[in-house]
Amino acid sequence: MSSDSHNNQNNQDSSVGLVKPQQVVIEQPLKLACGVILPSHRLVYETYGTLNKDRSNGILICHALSGDHHAAGHHEGETKTGWWDNYIGPGKPIDSNRFYIVSVNNIGSCFGSTGPASENPETGKPYGADFPPLRARDWVASQRLLMQHLKIKCWAAVVGGSLGGMQAMRWSLEHPDELQHAVVIASSMKLTAQNIAFNEIARKAIKSDADFCDGNYLQHNKVPHNGLALARMIGHVTYLSDELMGQKFGRDLRSGDLLQGKTDPVEFQIESYLNYQGDKFSDFFDANSYILITKMLDYFDLAREYNHDPVAAFSHAKCKFLVVSFSSDWRFSPDRSQEITDALIAAGKNVSYIAIDSDHGHDAFLLPNERYQKALGGYLSKLADRLEGGS
Amino acid sequence: MSSDSHNNQNNQDSSVGLVKPQQVVIEQPLKLACGVILPSHRLVYETYGTLNKDRSNGILICHALSGDHHAAGHHEGETKTGWWDNYIGPGKPIDSNRFYIVSVNNIGSCFGSTGPASENPETGKPYGADFPPLRARDWVASQRLLMQHLKIKCWAAVVGGSLGGMQAMRWSLEHPDELQHAVVIASSMKLTAQNIAFNEIARKAIKSDADFCDGNYLQHNKVPHNGLALARMIGHVTYLSDELMGQKFGRDLRSGDLLQGKTDPVEFQIESYLNYQGDKFSDFFDANSYILITKMLDYFDLAREYNHDPVAAFSHAKCKFLVVSFSSDWRFSPDRSQEITDALIAAGKNVSYIAIDSDHGHDAFLLPNERYQKALGGYLSKLADRLEGGS
Repeated sequence: MSSDSHNNQNNQDSSVGLVKPQQVVIEQPLKLACGVILPSHRLVYETYGTLNKDRSNGILICHALSGDHHAAGHHEGETKTGWWDNYIGPGKPIDSNRFYIVSVNNIGSCFGSTGPASENPETGKPYGADFPPLRARDWVASQRLLMQHLKIKCWAAVVGGSLGGMQAMRWSLEHPDELQHAVVIASSMKLTAQNIAFNEIARKAIKSDADFCDGNYLQHNKVPHNGLALARMIGHVTYLSDELMGQKFGRDLRSGDLLQGKTDPVEFQIESYLNYQGDKFSDFFDANSYILITKMLDYFDLAREYNHDPVAAFSHAKCKFLVVSFSSDWRFSPDRSQEITDALIAAGKNVSYIAIDSDHGHDAFLLPNERYQKALGGYLSKLADRLEGGS
Repeated sequence: MSSDSHNNQNNQDSSVGLVKPQQVVIEQPLKLACGVILPSHRLVYETYGTLNKDRSNGILICHALSGDHHAAGHHEGETKTGWWDNYIGPGKPIDSNRFYIVSVNNIGSCFGSTGPASENPETGKPYGADFPPLRARDWVASQRLLMQHLKIKCWAAVVGGSLGGMQAMRWSLEHPDELQHAVVIASSMKLTAQNIAFNEIARKAIKSDADFCDGNYLQHNKVPHNGLALARMIGHVTYLSDELMGQKFGRDLRSGDLLQGKTDPVEFQIESYLNYQGDKFSDFFDANSYILITKMLDYFDLAREYNHDPVAAFSHAKCKFLVVSFSSDWRFSPDRSQEITDALIAAGKNVSYIAIDSDHGHDAFLLPNERYQKALGGYLSKLADRLEGGS
């Protein structure tokens, strides 16, 4: 393994401030769930806070579909903060004054870690559509190699929202002795047919783009912008609640006029907003990664190999659980979190479940919310107390 | 005006049996809401049942986004029945033994009535993207010209689901003396931002298809199949409920295997189903019509010109109303029907509202459901009793 130097912060204000991504090439072969072996792979990650003496205060942040390693603070020359800056920082719910927080860009993604845009050592060209299919357990396995690189034997907590929560649950089953807590936010034990349907439409949008070139667009110096923008627009609608879209955009017009006697095109604000979001996303995300990771989401089925019995699955876990849901989340609704909680209770596990009222749909897990902040912060501060108590 | 001969049925079994579409060219100029005048337009329609002596038992069926004139019975050489055959026929809720039922393909659509695929008399080429923007009131105005052609002075009822319900409501405001009843099923007084969002994504999917050629694909002997299939897939997901998709498809696989050690592609049944639905739709629907009619849906806002006050709007109505909603419909949820009903009550109108329990989402309005059949049939049979009582 090789790695850049760490870059820990210990700011007293509410931001982790300037952060520098690090990277490591894991030289140890990684056998994926599909059977393919990655001889080595690169991981880009960030850390916030300081690892304590007994290396027991590590928190692993697991990102979702479009996430990356940049969860908090800002990069040099940039003011934009990381995707979970609302929740990670000094004095924040995931407190960088008390925890050593590790946020990694997972393999298959497109922010520096090995993925479809990386060079395939066998061909010297980008993997493209040939990148092997991935499962959440492959991300867990890769994260565990990073954990070993960081010389951490047990995470204080593995934390994630959406697909991130799936990784936290998978950690609890695969490596029960290597995490103390799993924090599972706005997640699900498996996707519904409707979830899969939206993912498939997004994939078809990408594949239908003439510039997709069967996934080998990079070799043709092309990018399937339109298809990827469409995919993002579809996803985006499922992250927001009907209520919130109503409050934020309603039927407000961006241009044109609904008066009679007009033939000018009418554009609603919501159309303009979604098109903007789609275009912006297609500038930085990789289309093959989008296909790969939505497939990973579809394939995730926590209890599949436990005879489809979530209680049997969770009987393998040893950590404590915090489960969080949001009332207006219709992608992974509170029912999904309740199912997780019910299975954990039936398996005799230690679980706390908080159902948060929010208008913000699935995206609520990223956004400020007083009760959510208090609950997550309270849960983790008790954990920090115990760690600092010298246990 | 010119028209083919009528083709009324009076079968005693439960089907209207063989039907033959009719057509009329309305030579009277139609001034559209946008100000453009259609000098003449063709309408294709079907009728079921017999017009009574005083021409008072006419029921107008208003179709939705992808509907057509073929609502009941079957065409020569075909076994497939019309889209509302569950509800229209001898002894059925919309009883062809008692009513003269008129079902018309509306302008802007693509089943024979004047629309984007028709020849633009000014250019000699298909209208394509140049077909003028339409509003629901334009459909009402055109239907009224058909009504005059049929020498009907007042409909016993105007009936429709979804966009069809919007036409029924618009009829009640625009021509209050020309209908006795409006039956408004699974509809809304206006689309939400989420509804508009899904429509815009569908339109973008069509426009992004390289074969769309800015709407002039017919001139290039092309059809934007992929884009239209995607548009339909998006729409289709919003017509079904999460519950129903779960019951029908769940996580069943069409091909591949989720076992570890497999790299073969995995396809879920829901993916296969949606792709099939999309492909099938793109074989017969016109892409410009899809864009035009989804825009019509977005623009519909019953109370816009009544100071956005639905009570003020409905104060112009004179007919009686039946409003129907379905519990799992998340496209036009029961809340939307309740808003219609509340406004009608506040306007002092005669309204009955039935909220039907159904797992079938928005599509429930097309599907067999005992309570819905009884309620709609009961409501209309009382109307037939009054008509036949010589009132």
